[in-house]
Amino acid sequence: MRHNPERRTALLDAAIEVLAREGSRGLTLRAVDAEAGVPTGTASNYFANRAQLLVQILHRTRERIAPDPADLPAPLDAKVLLMLLLERMRRERSVHIAMLELRLEGIRRPELQAEVAAFQGAELEANIAWHLESGLPGDRQGVLLLYFAMLGLIVEDLTVPAMLEAYPVAGVIDAMVERLLPESPAQ
Amino acid sequence: MRHNPERRTALLDAAIEVLAREGSRGLTLRAVDAEAGVPTGTASNYFANRAQLLVQILHRTRERIAPDPADLPAPLDAKVLLMLLLERMRRERSVHIAMLELRLEGIRRPELQAEVAAFQGAELEANIAWHLESGLPGDRQGVLLLYFAMLGLIVEDLTVPAMLEAYPVAGVIDAMVERLLPESPAQ
Repeated sequence: MRHNPERRTALLDAAIEVLAREGSRGLTLRAVDAEAGVPTGTASNYFANRAQLLVQILHRTRERIAPDPADLPAPLDAKVLLMLLLERMRRERSVHIAMLELRLEGIRRPELQAEVAAFQGAELEANIAWHLESGLPGDRQGVLLLYFAMLGLIVEDLTVPAMLEAYPVAGVIDAMVERLLPESPAQ
Repeated sequence: MRHNPERRTALLDAAIEVLAREGSRGLTLRAVDAEAGVPTGTASNYFANRAQLLVQILHRTRERIAPDPADLPAPLDAKVLLMLLLERMRRERSVHIAMLELRLEGIRRPELQAEVAAFQGAELEANIAWHLESGLPGDRQGVLLLYFAMLGLIVEDLTVPAMLEAYPVAGVIDAMVERLLPESPAQ
């Protein structure tokens, strides 16, 4: 196994593009080599097999999606944060589509599903903890509901953006925050 | 084209199973014949091509998922309705997985995406209208938010059910209804 971190990252980013464009069945180590413009056999020097590649893609998606702390609004504002999250998703559609493809492939591959479940569970708990420590309004239950609502909104925006035109997202996000993160939580 | 409605429905249900098990790339007219246990060539007598099959699957998913009016609780109760929706989804996982596969294939096929967007948009508006006419609590904005939150919950339950074990769904659904469908809406 070679260990050139930049090359490894470039291969994972190429794999994300292949997943987003071709779907999970189109993802082979050879297709990753072609997408990255490297000699055939390169990806197999970095990833023992396709299953290992899938798990590493999962972790690369987080690096691609995680906000830069310098981009956070000051003072923190939940509505502004969620609009930034949506805008970042729209700039990184391939990453989110690749994530949906991994979720679906996980339905057929229990070991991948276990990885995705552990990864998403850790992300969600980290988000809840960060939110509660940040001084933003809302309680644990509200942040959890916001997570489900934003996941639904993102799935719609990724797969049927034309449908969302009837429901302007800024208004949807404002209402989510007002109802799910009340200043004085109901419970 | 033959017009035996029962045969046509059986072929669409077979196609849903193929989509759920193999993903959209595995869906061919020939695979549908094999799944339905009918002679090769049968599906191509019912569907002019794969694109037409995909659109008809979309409409069949609604028939499979729509609640039987006799199953609705009386008096209507939003929490009970949403738990019934989730339980029906769990009994019909293949249908929902097939829907996710159609959404993802739509990303790559603009004409399918337009069909899915029109279908989901019409379903959502019908749900909102039914809710507002039913006498259930909540306003238009609240029902829309509930739709996104339930979509997110369903995607999690389909793809990473183990993750959801940490967040008992009955409590999640109760909180959704309490916060999103207040008796006296905030706006």
